[in-house]
Amino acid sequence: MARKNKEKLALGSIITAGPGTGVQGGWKHPQAEHHRFLEIPYYVEIAQSMERGGFDFIFFADKLAIPGRNPESRELALRTGTWGAAHPDPLLIVAALAGATKHLGLAVTLSTSYQHPFTAARSLATLDHLSGGRAVWNVVTSHDDAEAHNYGLARQLQRSARYNRADEFVETVFGLWDTWEDDAVIFDKENNTVIDPAKVHELNHHGEHFHVQGPLNIPRPPQGRPVIAQAGSSEEGRDFAARWAEVIFTPQPNIDVAKAFYTDLKSRLPKFGRTASELKVLPGALIIVGENEAIAREKEALLLELNDARQALVQLSGMIEKDLSGYSLDEPAEPILSSIAVQGMQGHVNALAAIARKDSLTLGQLARRFASGLTFARFVGTPTQIADEIEKWFENYACDGFMLRTAYNPSGTEDIVRLLIPELRKRGLVRTEYTGKTLRENIGLARPERETWRQRLVTPEPIPAAATV
Amino acid sequence: MARKNKEKLALGSIITAGPGTGVQGGWKHPQAEHHRFLEIPYYVEIAQSMERGGFDFIFFADKLAIPGRNPESRELALRTGTWGAAHPDPLLIVAALAGATKHLGLAVTLSTSYQHPFTAARSLATLDHLSGGRAVWNVVTSHDDAEAHNYGLARQLQRSARYNRADEFVETVFGLWDTWEDDAVIFDKENNTVIDPAKVHELNHHGEHFHVQGPLNIPRPPQGRPVIAQAGSSEEGRDFAARWAEVIFTPQPNIDVAKAFYTDLKSRLPKFGRTASELKVLPGALIIVGENEAIAREKEALLLELNDARQALVQLSGMIEKDLSGYSLDEPAEPILSSIAVQGMQGHVNALAAIARKDSLTLGQLARRFASGLTFARFVGTPTQIADEIEKWFENYACDGFMLRTAYNPSGTEDIVRLLIPELRKRGLVRTEYTGKTLRENIGLARPERETWRQRLVTPEPIPAAATV
Repeated sequence: MARKNKEKLALGSIITAGPGTGVQGGWKHPQAEHHRFLEIPYYVEIAQSMERGGFDFIFFADKLAIPGRNPESRELALRTGTWGAAHPDPLLIVAALAGATKHLGLAVTLSTSYQHPFTAARSLATLDHLSGGRAVWNVVTSHDDAEAHNYGLARQLQRSARYNRADEFVETVFGLWDTWEDDAVIFDKENNTVIDPAKVHELNHHGEHFHVQGPLNIPRPPQGRPVIAQAGSSEEGRDFAARWAEVIFTPQPNIDVAKAFYTDLKSRLPKFGRTASELKVLPGALIIVGENEAIAREKEALLLELNDARQALVQLSGMIEKDLSGYSLDEPAEPILSSIAVQGMQGHVNALAAIARKDSLTLGQLARRFASGLTFARFVGTPTQIADEIEKWFENYACDGFMLRTAYNPSGTEDIVRLLIPELRKRGLVRTEYTGKTLRENIGLARPERETWRQRLVTPEPIPAAATV
Repeated sequence: MARKNKEKLALGSIITAGPGTGVQGGWKHPQAEHHRFLEIPYYVEIAQSMERGGFDFIFFADKLAIPGRNPESRELALRTGTWGAAHPDPLLIVAALAGATKHLGLAVTLSTSYQHPFTAARSLATLDHLSGGRAVWNVVTSHDDAEAHNYGLARQLQRSARYNRADEFVETVFGLWDTWEDDAVIFDKENNTVIDPAKVHELNHHGEHFHVQGPLNIPRPPQGRPVIAQAGSSEEGRDFAARWAEVIFTPQPNIDVAKAFYTDLKSRLPKFGRTASELKVLPGALIIVGENEAIAREKEALLLELNDARQALVQLSGMIEKDLSGYSLDEPAEPILSSIAVQGMQGHVNALAAIARKDSLTLGQLARRFASGLTFARFVGTPTQIADEIEKWFENYACDGFMLRTAYNPSGTEDIVRLLIPELRKRGLVRTEYTGKTLRENIGLARPERETWRQRLVTPEPIPAAATV
């Protein structure tokens, strides 16, 4: 049982910029140093640890408002330090990390709903240059009324409108990156020429949402374009990923659901003129690793102890953008979740309903599990046990790798690198050294030629009967 | 002749992110390393050099388009590497510098015309936190049709509309920074509280241009707010500076004009409820320093040799946003400049007209001087000669310090630190070590209490007959 060509895992880790980690109460862990969340060295420690561990990239999500649909839920979000309650701009953090690391990919989230494509194209190109070709753009459409309220809207855009704008946004950004040919900058003293003007072109994008003349005011990124990541799970989100994304982050409760998701995503690619190898599917996985199983289980139990159900429910409500505080903690969770439709995060809601049904959970139990990060894939145990699980998902095409998570930092990440990574290296699943120069070279994604992406839009290839993986 | 209390110069240096430095052809200098303009170490070398020299801050201007009013002028801008022709996002550069320096202030430009105040408030607060209280926001309104074309506008906003929007923008940003009380973040494990919700407040700004609910999603900046800088010279720009700015950058041709500007600016402060010490006036000054006078003069002559008049005229046109390419290089410059009105940069046009009149320059001669950065204050000579000049401006209240410039980097900056700074330190004009923790403490600007700035808007103090300095 082995993937061909000694294929390696694509390996990222989601690090929260802020006091929370997505595991409620994680900040109270004796080894947590989340009070340092506004200091560069906190993030440098984590990133350098990941680089020693051969990770492909560090990933920062983003949120443009304190979570909460009303003053009460926002109050609880602040009190518990929910993810997003205090959230420095991750773009500045990855810029600082670009100078403090050499090989690690730097994945940052920018919203297509509340940014302008010229600004986004320029910031991301800058990151790709400053890091020597290590930038990843996680494209989000934002799905939260609280964010809308900070940007002049009464409520978030409807999903279809968000993705419509997102499509045009990405087209514009791709177009801007391609306004410079790769060899436009020459610094030719003899001919008195810094930049060859014949190799810099206007864009002249005129669409429904944006009018952008260009050219961009920075050379084409070293990677051609930053690696494109995406995390939507709705129908629109999956098609959007199949059209644009090269890496997709996804919450998955177990290997079977993950396999279905994997197959579905890969099967959408031909419709957009792409092949299966052009998109890597990375489910999230909370890692709780111990020198032996008892230690790992103790760590897990401690995490559950660190949160409480009422606060957990607020966190759950914030994530799915639906206020559940009116329900009793003792009600069965599944009927509640199955009855609601949300504008964002539909994938999360569906997955949670499935878990609640399977284990017959009350709303309170589900919320605590969720708040401790235990509703989605979690791997708890010894390095061997966890590596077995990871290998099983990978070999069975439930994923192309993982987006690992820890409950507290920096020591949670250091535990992974110290305990788990050596076992994965022994199995040939993780690199022992970086062989490429850019992230694309390391993670195995081709450097795109200029303007080739437009062919996908203009002349879609015929859709084959079935996609193979 | 001495300012009271052994007052020190406020000292910044403008470093261009890009191949140009504002001195056309500077990139061709044998010691220039501008081809490294997309690498972090290039900027780190300069910043660490400045920190050894006791500078208050490093400053990055910004431009949201390749300069040029038409394809021809843009072509020349690219060819000559005019400032702005390739311009990485300076916000990411200062973020990288935050991790590579300890004391140096980090001044970055953000436009009020093409940003959203929530984004700006958050990015700048992040920079202030990550740097431990060293952020400066240079507020610009942007004044360039090429920029407008990249952001969906047929042309730039008229000046009054720009400043109207800028006022509301700054109010909104100030308001957002004050939505968190200083001691809101507590990490109190016993009471299970990360952030005290009673100390985080909504903003609920509803104005002509923006609707922002808040609160901001990051704690109040260490400096209370980043230091506010501004560079406008028009009537509207001066009033804007007098209302909001704590540091003003200004091009000045000589000490007499600078004194008039200084007095004018300081006299506007009481109208906005402020005192003279709350705003520091920093003229730009190109420094060409040599071990002896002959060496300095040789350096100056080389700079003039490095550019040509036709290319220089394009650069001049780009700066003042008026295409002068239709004029002959041999025409007298003064009548041309005096006859034009521009939407931005009126201060530059007026100053250039004055120089052209004084020295009876042709358009070609003026353009070359301009392109070599010699139209505004330049100090050429030995360390003693330059220090004499600097001291004269300072003691005569023509300035509170300087924004130094060099024609090429990093060695131009290193020359200043190696040759000029020791002489200025000998005279007590520049610190030998940093004594404060934040930039405000070092440069001598008070940390603002929350919300006190609103009093200036609501109840302006009566205007005294004359302002004293």
